[in-house]
Amino acid sequence: MTSLPLAKAQNIIDAAIVKANEIGQPMNIAVVDDGGHLIAFARMDGAIKASIDISTRKARTSILMNAPTAALSDLVQPGAELYGLEQLSGGLVIFGGGILLEIDGTVVGAIGVSAGSVSQDVAVAEAGVAALS
Amino acid sequence: MTSLPLAKAQNIIDAAIVKANEIGQPMNIAVVDDGGHLIAFARMDGAIKASIDISTRKARTSILMNAPTAALSDLVQPGAELYGLEQLSGGLVIFGGGILLEIDGTVVGAIGVSAGSVSQDVAVAEAGVAALS
Amino acid sequence: MTSLPLAKAQNIIDAAIVKANEIGQPMNIAVVDDGGHLIAFARMDGAIKASIDISTRKARTSILMNAPTAALSDLVQPGAELYGLEQLSGGLVIFGGGILLEIDGTVVGAIGVSAGSVSQDVAVAEAGVAALS
Amino acid sequence: MTSLPLAKAQNIIDAAIVKANEIGQPMNIAVVDDGGHLIAFARMDGAIKASIDISTRKARTSILMNAPTAALSDLVQPGAELYGLEQLSGGLVIFGGGILLEIDGTVVGAIGVSAGSVSQDVAVAEAGVAALS
Repeated sequence: MTSLPLAKAQNIIDAAIVKANEIGQPMNIAVVDDGGHLIAFARMDGAIKASIDISTRKARTSILMNAPTAALSDLVQPGAELYGLEQLSGGLVIFGGGILLEIDGTVVGAIGVSAGSVSQDVAVAEAGVAALS
Repeated sequence: MTSLPLAKAQNIIDAAIVKANEIGQPMNIAVVDDGGHLIAFARMDGAIKASIDISTRKARTSILMNAPTAALSDLVQPGAELYGLEQLSGGLVIFGGGILLEIDGTVVGAIGVSAGSVSQDVAVAEAGVAALS
Repeated sequence: MTSLPLAKAQNIIDAAIVKANEIGQPMNIAVVDDGGHLIAFARMDGAIKASIDISTRKARTSILMNAPTAALSDLVQPGAELYGLEQLSGGLVIFGGGILLEIDGTVVGAIGVSAGSVSQDVAVAEAGVAALS
Repeated sequence: MTSLPLAKAQNIIDAAIVKANEIGQPMNIAVVDDGGHLIAFARMDGAIKASIDISTRKARTSILMNAPTAALSDLVQPGAELYGLEQLSGGLVIFGGGILLEIDGTVVGAIGVSAGSVSQDVAVAEAGVAALS
């Protein structure tokens, strides 16, 4: 198994952009490899700048936690088991929009999407994931 | 009293790994000295990468707070006395899995375990502690 | 004047990739806007991971210094006027590979290229710049 | 290809420790995976604490630069092409002691050794590398 090639990462970003345009929300979209290192990134025209970091960090968080970032939200609330998690391991994102990219059950990378509502971010990330298969 | 030697730190990690295998949860395990500086570390196959930092930081937090990290959770909730503690002193972990290592009542180091549920992390850390006596 | 749109940033990256393939050196290529914020990024297959940060920071350095990064090298040597500059403003890159992107004399962004020799990085960045006109 | 398992990382550290004992210089020894993430670490009794970070960062630098850290020294001197490199990509080590770990020509990780003279560090790292084959 080789790591995710740039051509596939760009396909994933292109598919995410199609979805973002469909819902009318410009997005920041990042694709990282299985070590959390950036392969490709695109900020759509009009997407907020804060989400450059947030999208990239969502993808990295998915790799480091081996899970979608949406799975973390409940665990880190006040009183919950992992309260305070977000400031560990260099800064993790604890809301949805980061999803693992897998080929035949092996993690090859992750996508992170940010700039809309969390449900929009997740929908666009899922469109990116779908482009891998 | 001399500080914890590497051979003992490795025994502690080995005992923790035995326990982690027993409960079927791969873990990151760190042992630090009485200054909070890393002596030995092991990431078991399949354990999440975020816990490299978290396990090490749990051990360091125990040294800096002179307490198990599980003792901090109640104190740092919204409205509680130490709310916000987790972002001080370079970043502290405020959930269980970090425990002091003591010989005859003297702190010689700490163990930090991370990658499972908090109760799993604590159980594996306790197995490490037990290997010291 | 509008800031650089994603479509143009991608054209610039595509042109840089063509040049990188021509010289047989896989590269990291970043395009930032006139505020130094990332618009698009690509890491070619086989390009070193250290250059993710370096390419992005070269582009950002060009914006912050309003100059190509190659212009900084002489100024920061021991004994020279700006010795120590590289650790300021969040970390600047003081060797070639970052170049301003201008339209009709107005800065609209910058490109940063890293992973080869400095002269290769500059050649690939210049190919990106040429794609803007 | 799977990433480097803990058992192999520990073999590598054990072999490095044998060599360090042979030359009579206690060392810090770190092994990271192909994404630069720590797998195993040992600080031998009496080895300096600064080298916890340095050894780990040497291994990470080898991954990020896809080269032994010893190869960087000439390139980063005042007046040389990559002067200033050491403060990029989160902080790189630019002297010897970090070496890639390869299986059949594929990078699976890296070892970093620190606490002695650079030539001692390199000798101990090479002993670790030799244990992989």
